[in-house]
Amino acid sequence: MLAQRLIERKRDGGRLEAGEWRALTLAYAAGHVPDYQMAAFLMACFLRGMDRSETAALTEAMLGSGDRLDLADLGVPRVDKHSTGGVGDKVSLVLAPLVASLGVAVPMMSGRGLGHTGGTLDKLESIPGFRTSLTLEEARSQLARIGCALIGQTKQIAPADRKMYALRDATGTVESIPLIAASIMSKKLAEDLTGLVLDIKRGSGSFLPQLERELELAEAMIRLGSDHSCPVVALITAMDRPLGRACGNSLEVEEAIHTLKGEGPPALLEVTYALGVEMLLIAGVASSADEARRQMEKAIGTGRAAECFQKIIEAQGGNPGVVDDPAVLPQAGDCELFSAPRRGFVARVEPRAIGRGIIALGGGRTKMDDVIDPSVGFVITARPGDWVEQGEPLATVFARDRAGIETGKHALRQAIAIADEADPPLPLVSHRVTKDGVTVVEHP
Amino acid sequence: MLAQRLIERKRDGGRLEAGEWRALTLAYAAGHVPDYQMAAFLMACFLRGMDRSETAALTEAMLGSGDRLDLADLGVPRVDKHSTGGVGDKVSLVLAPLVASLGVAVPMMSGRGLGHTGGTLDKLESIPGFRTSLTLEEARSQLARIGCALIGQTKQIAPADRKMYALRDATGTVESIPLIAASIMSKKLAEDLTGLVLDIKRGSGSFLPQLERELELAEAMIRLGSDHSCPVVALITAMDRPLGRACGNSLEVEEAIHTLKGEGPPALLEVTYALGVEMLLIAGVASSADEARRQMEKAIGTGRAAECFQKIIEAQGGNPGVVDDPAVLPQAGDCELFSAPRRGFVARVEPRAIGRGIIALGGGRTKMDDVIDPSVGFVITARPGDWVEQGEPLATVFARDRAGIETGKHALRQAIAIADEADPPLPLVSHRVTKDGVTVVEHP
Repeated sequence: MLAQRLIERKRDGGRLEAGEWRALTLAYAAGHVPDYQMAAFLMACFLRGMDRSETAALTEAMLGSGDRLDLADLGVPRVDKHSTGGVGDKVSLVLAPLVASLGVAVPMMSGRGLGHTGGTLDKLESIPGFRTSLTLEEARSQLARIGCALIGQTKQIAPADRKMYALRDATGTVESIPLIAASIMSKKLAEDLTGLVLDIKRGSGSFLPQLERELELAEAMIRLGSDHSCPVVALITAMDRPLGRACGNSLEVEEAIHTLKGEGPPALLEVTYALGVEMLLIAGVASSADEARRQMEKAIGTGRAAECFQKIIEAQGGNPGVVDDPAVLPQAGDCELFSAPRRGFVARVEPRAIGRGIIALGGGRTKMDDVIDPSVGFVITARPGDWVEQGEPLATVFARDRAGIETGKHALRQAIAIADEADPPLPLVSHRVTKDGVTVVEHP
Repeated sequence: MLAQRLIERKRDGGRLEAGEWRALTLAYAAGHVPDYQMAAFLMACFLRGMDRSETAALTEAMLGSGDRLDLADLGVPRVDKHSTGGVGDKVSLVLAPLVASLGVAVPMMSGRGLGHTGGTLDKLESIPGFRTSLTLEEARSQLARIGCALIGQTKQIAPADRKMYALRDATGTVESIPLIAASIMSKKLAEDLTGLVLDIKRGSGSFLPQLERELELAEAMIRLGSDHSCPVVALITAMDRPLGRACGNSLEVEEAIHTLKGEGPPALLEVTYALGVEMLLIAGVASSADEARRQMEKAIGTGRAAECFQKIIEAQGGNPGVVDDPAVLPQAGDCELFSAPRRGFVARVEPRAIGRGIIALGGGRTKMDDVIDPSVGFVITARPGDWVEQGEPLATVFARDRAGIETGKHALRQAIAIADEADPPLPLVSHRVTKDGVTVVEHP
């Protein structure tokens, strides 16, 4: 009877008290409220909205449905980065070891690819042997030892969120800002962080395409962090084209390793540094953006950042040799260059078409239990705004076989537009959001 | 994937094509779309609305999910009456045999009590042996033989509606006019009617308390009837107090029998005649309201109407002796008068409080599989507007035992208000709605 009354109240535009959010969330997690009632309730939340205190109460209820890390005795700041997801976004693979190598503990909890976006867990698991399903105790001990653990949402963490997210994914109730904010923050707060940096993607390849809504999401998560004494800073970054060149699981790991060694594509490095600056500032280990950036350049230059990645891989059962020789990663059976069909400006490299192309090649999922081929994907050298001649190589397709090559070329034809003019792409980092408000990031 | 896309479209204010309604409805009935997706979809329909052609398409899809009667070769008009439900509403028990005795086939499909309202099937089953679960073939043959069959929604009729209604009942998605209209009409149209009369209840005891919404519902059902060449007329009738005196299953059967013999309470008779006039006019067996009324008065006066009820009871396995001796009905273990606590006007007899009182006595359900005690209930002689002296009897409680008597008296204290003034009750029949519009019914 409880759920029924709460559905009706939300449906009619009313609000739930904190105790009601808690009771409903825990009853759902325990199986006492059936999926169909929760689905109707979530659709009512989606269409009627939730106020700030309701969002806080849901976050608290989901957080309280599971266990939390207790990292206070590590004696160092603990900072994570969360991205709303994109294509070619391997920032986590670079940023986590980079920041951890500078004395900040990084308990990073990531997800799998679903829809057109990739997932950090899938990328990591392309490293032979790499295990992402650590228990909280294993993660804790690894954090104490080497300052970083790269894990998935275990069954221990926010199980109510886990169950509710799977339901939202099947019932058209994902893209609700309060529900998204509560879902992300219930997991992040379980990491016992002293700070959190958000990478909110913007542009056609992001899952909330309007800037307004992205700022709203950033503000909602900043507020939820404040409620739990966890300062949160968000950057709005470009996802109107893939980030960097590699798109596909093992290809992205390879590019991340190059970047940790100072040989990455400039756009990837710029976004990584921008987020790293925020992590180091929020952690208090740097006192200015310039200082933070110099620390990171040094960690890359001296090889400390790459070494830290090697330690993480080794600790989590992966083949640490990958850092010295990326050829230990799964290799695609076939590859082929893709060339410009005409001369002109590269007007667009559409991330959704690239993401769907990876799925078509077998490198992504259409449902949670699909097995993926980590070797396939694209390396795209053409960038929006470039002038290209007919026949000039724009990208390489990596596929299982000849049929895959054709599939991949078809995707690239959909994704890459050549035209007589090209609008300028979005700035890589456009806005910075803190509890004090939004500032537009200046570009020199 | 189909359901997911349709949920999203409806959520965003879009509409479904007829083929999509059919595919979704049949996939749900077949178990290929899970309850949780349908629940989210129904909540989106509830909050975003459905246009006329969508309501028609859903009706058609639910109708098409099952079997239909084929009554064309009966050679007589086929007319049913549907009520949106109330307390003390035993009109069907009187009207069906009355109209059937005048040469109109009445294939009447009714429901069970749920919430505060009673159900015709429960009332009929208080007659020892009475069986309401006829197959369509049994109903057809009984209609050919005696002109009336009183049945429930079998598994053969609109199974998609049956499944969807149970889900709506658990997910706060009942009170949506397009969903209600489609649900009712998908069942009624399966009866192969040549006409349908609707009794739409109005007032605090009705389930749509605003007149505007009742008119909207009437208009929606009239349109759905027109689409299937089934003329529909609706009367808006009073449910600000119970209809007649008896409230409770076997008590209502007894009152219906008295009414069929010309000894019923005037309000019950007036509503029955008003609806009967519409049925006889729509059937074409009377050419004016006056003529229709005279035919009904005659059928009651000569005993033909009561005889018809007796034949129906006999045909459906019930004890036909009940018509001559209502004492064969289950009798309550105890009864007690309830008297006016003060002098004044009867200001209110609240149907919801009476309905809840019947449930508290064991005569109604809080969930579908509750077993009910048909003998319990109330006979309420006090009518809104009556002047009563302190200690004057207002009602009788019928209960299983002494504890039940106290429960019943408590309900009556909640339901019956005595005050120094009383607002006039709603007119018994206030509006008549046809495809040509709404007219206010004049009272002499």
